[in-house]
Amino acid sequence: MNLYGKHLLCTQDWSVEELEAVLGLAKKMKANRYSSKFTSLLQYKSFLMFFYNPSVRTRQSFEAAATELGGHAQFLEPKGMRLKTSKSAGETNEDAAKVMSRYGAGIGIRILEDKVSRYGEGHTLLKEYCEFGTMPVISMAHDKFHPCQGLADVQGAREHLGDLRGKKILVVWGHGALARSWCSVQESILINSRLGMDVTVAHPEGYDLDPEVIKLAKQNCKKNGTKFEITNDPYEGYRNAHIVYSRNWMSPKAYQNGEFKKPEEVEKALKYPEWITDTKKMKLTKNALYTHPMPVDRGHEVTDEVCSGPRSIIYDVAENRLHAQKAIMALTMSRYDYVPEE
Amino acid sequence: MNLYGKHLLCTQDWSVEELEAVLGLAKKMKANRYSSKFTSLLQYKSFLMFFYNPSVRTRQSFEAAATELGGHAQFLEPKGMRLKTSKSAGETNEDAAKVMSRYGAGIGIRILEDKVSRYGEGHTLLKEYCEFGTMPVISMAHDKFHPCQGLADVQGAREHLGDLRGKKILVVWGHGALARSWCSVQESILINSRLGMDVTVAHPEGYDLDPEVIKLAKQNCKKNGTKFEITNDPYEGYRNAHIVYSRNWMSPKAYQNGEFKKPEEVEKALKYPEWITDTKKMKLTKNALYTHPMPVDRGHEVTDEVCSGPRSIIYDVAENRLHAQKAIMALTMSRYDYVPEE
Amino acid sequence: MNLYGKHLLCTQDWSVEELEAVLGLAKKMKANRYSSKFTSLLQYKSFLMFFYNPSVRTRQSFEAAATELGGHAQFLEPKGMRLKTSKSAGETNEDAAKVMSRYGAGIGIRILEDKVSRYGEGHTLLKEYCEFGTMPVISMAHDKFHPCQGLADVQGAREHLGDLRGKKILVVWGHGALARSWCSVQESILINSRLGMDVTVAHPEGYDLDPEVIKLAKQNCKKNGTKFEITNDPYEGYRNAHIVYSRNWMSPKAYQNGEFKKPEEVEKALKYPEWITDTKKMKLTKNALYTHPMPVDRGHEVTDEVCSGPRSIIYDVAENRLHAQKAIMALTMSRYDYVPEE
Repeated sequence: MNLYGKHLLCTQDWSVEELEAVLGLAKKMKANRYSSKFTSLLQYKSFLMFFYNPSVRTRQSFEAAATELGGHAQFLEPKGMRLKTSKSAGETNEDAAKVMSRYGAGIGIRILEDKVSRYGEGHTLLKEYCEFGTMPVISMAHDKFHPCQGLADVQGAREHLGDLRGKKILVVWGHGALARSWCSVQESILINSRLGMDVTVAHPEGYDLDPEVIKLAKQNCKKNGTKFEITNDPYEGYRNAHIVYSRNWMSPKAYQNGEFKKPEEVEKALKYPEWITDTKKMKLTKNALYTHPMPVDRGHEVTDEVCSGPRSIIYDVAENRLHAQKAIMALTMSRYDYVPEE
Repeated sequence: MNLYGKHLLCTQDWSVEELEAVLGLAKKMKANRYSSKFTSLLQYKSFLMFFYNPSVRTRQSFEAAATELGGHAQFLEPKGMRLKTSKSAGETNEDAAKVMSRYGAGIGIRILEDKVSRYGEGHTLLKEYCEFGTMPVISMAHDKFHPCQGLADVQGAREHLGDLRGKKILVVWGHGALARSWCSVQESILINSRLGMDVTVAHPEGYDLDPEVIKLAKQNCKKNGTKFEITNDPYEGYRNAHIVYSRNWMSPKAYQNGEFKKPEEVEKALKYPEWITDTKKMKLTKNALYTHPMPVDRGHEVTDEVCSGPRSIIYDVAENRLHAQKAIMALTMSRYDYVPEE
Repeated sequence: MNLYGKHLLCTQDWSVEELEAVLGLAKKMKANRYSSKFTSLLQYKSFLMFFYNPSVRTRQSFEAAATELGGHAQFLEPKGMRLKTSKSAGETNEDAAKVMSRYGAGIGIRILEDKVSRYGEGHTLLKEYCEFGTMPVISMAHDKFHPCQGLADVQGAREHLGDLRGKKILVVWGHGALARSWCSVQESILINSRLGMDVTVAHPEGYDLDPEVIKLAKQNCKKNGTKFEITNDPYEGYRNAHIVYSRNWMSPKAYQNGEFKKPEEVEKALKYPEWITDTKKMKLTKNALYTHPMPVDRGHEVTDEVCSGPRSIIYDVAENRLHAQKAIMALTMSRYDYVPEE
């Protein structure tokens, strides 16, 4: 399993075997967090973290991941980087990527909905770094996908449910004041359909996700002989679910004339108070786990009762960000030779 | 002496034996700065530094402390953390603390007078992190206390004076344009009264410190059979002092309607030019050491002549921040077993 | 060759033998990047990076350099440091430098044209840190000089041309919208004249550099029996050049009444569109290498064709920043004993 030098922009770009290598190694790393097998893998190496958007978990977990692998993560903000934009002279992404590749063992980039002028622009930026640089590019969440979150989700779900094949996940829109990007939910839909789950997506009318992602998810399910459903009913999707994943997201109309219209999105989203994950809805499920990529907007996306309840795995999933990212970094930035256990 | 997992919000919360363990280990660490006894204690571990307020010494000394113990300190600013506030949706401190505990070996929090809406609010925040998290919380200075400064002060004073019991410290208000928080001076009063010094506090009328802290300091002195005095005279307290500690601080009226009124505080404080530590006043002492937690507002709190004079220990105390913090981190975040020397 | 504790503000302050030690060690470090000979030189030590101005390459290459030497670089911004200025109370540079010296193995300072009120003020600041501190001060680019860039330039040129003695470098002004400081070009002129190159400086009238630097460069050339020329013709200097180094720089009139007049400078500079390095001009040279300290303002300072062409060494030079800086840090901050190879 040679993943050295590979980019990770979306789990859909990797084979199932490759994703299983990450998940297998992440599990091993969680069980043996400071084992000497892992603590020298990035020794003396620099991982460049490039944050267009700030972050809690992503920053902390990537920086800790580099430290635990014996290396160092640099916290970089592009505002300090004199990059060329449509408004000012500066360095091209080509020049930046080529030089950074001389210093770093890999680069992580985070760019979300409010730092781009249209959906997909962040993805294009990451692809430029893949094209021009010569080191692995890892998405630390961008406007389209969030592969590290998807892998941490699966790791967490398996810890509690074992084999996920044939089980059902509900990915459900939550109302709220954050107008979040689509990256986490799209990644969840893709990876869970890929790995053999039935997937239901529920949201009010007007909150469709990227049609291309939906198409891919349907193909994934078809290949696995599983079910893919979309519903606009706030209750229906909960029936028989084994995992409920709730999250607010923006509508496809969020960008107007190159601007991200957050106030309008928030105003619109707050008109759907019935779209909240609560105990009543959870009772429709098969005693489902509750998960969320965090930060949680409690009282909007989910009630405190569910979010802090006995079936919530949000902190375990958050911890798994660390382990999944360590595994990704080990596999793509060091020559760690992962052999699946028999 | 098992201090593993213990929080440090104020030295008053720890026993004298526990404080002596820190001081003993800090002394040993200063004498053997890069000894292999210490350089692996935090290896591959992350210490999370959470700065509501910026800092020079605190940032540099904590970050260097983690490096010297073989670990890494993450520099985090809450403005980048999408935390819930009264004004915006976001993550609760509970969620933040629970997740951070999965990544970090410990957390330091700094929150001073201008980042809270009333005295004590910062202390409450730290207590929330203690309650919800599962890692040691270390104050890196908050509105009430500054335990690391207090320990560094004692370490420095002992280096120059030996046993401090029965000797006298003057903690004296200085005029100036900074309207500083009470944390450093309150910590000084508590730890020095605890460890057996006579304590005199001097300030103009209207600059009383927290009555609860004063009460505790009186009890400390009573227990040790030492003297505790408060004076509003700018000269009297200097008599027979072995240590003079000058510092500007805000008045109890600094907060009005939930706002920190800095301009009003500065205007008021500048009306007391006689409140400056100078050579004339120092002549009243028993050839006292001069100290200050820095940054010094020279010309207001103290003259250059005293501050840069032969009895000033400000740089030694500043250096001791590093050693005291290394000792605290080793004792609370690694299982370092400190045995006092005979 | 004992360079322990030495400051580096400009290559002109070091002997040729000392500069050759840096270049020799940097070459060795590039060939053996993670050799155990080098990876413990700064182990457990902190290098303090003090950025008045933001940066891409300088930040990344210094931070990676510290990591590769086994140590850690702290990223510090003075805005967070409550330093005394003409406008606000705060800490003196003397106090800051003395305390930082207790924590760090060395300090790097970056302060460019827009953070000072007159040319030379940044240089004065660095000299204060040299005077008051007790650790090596390394310029990470300041208003007058950029020694690390100069050393990386020479390392890169030698990789492609071998011995530079008797060969010709053209340092040529480029038009553009950035009004850059003089540090990189002045350092280039000094180090290349020092090491035996013929040096030609070309710029429009009104873009003279620091007369003292020009005087030193002339002396360097005289000592080596080489040529030093200045021309105001945009073509002439290219003839017979082995290296072309183009760069925009501000005029001597950039500061008016203590302010850096960037808009005026940009407006003026854009009036010279013929001052661009292009293929036509490069044909006048002896198949010259093209170099630039980056970030490149493509289309103004140089055409894409030249900058991305086969004779461009900009990425190699950028990489050499890392190696040159590792060598400087090893020599000044550890007791690494460099022995030139026979």
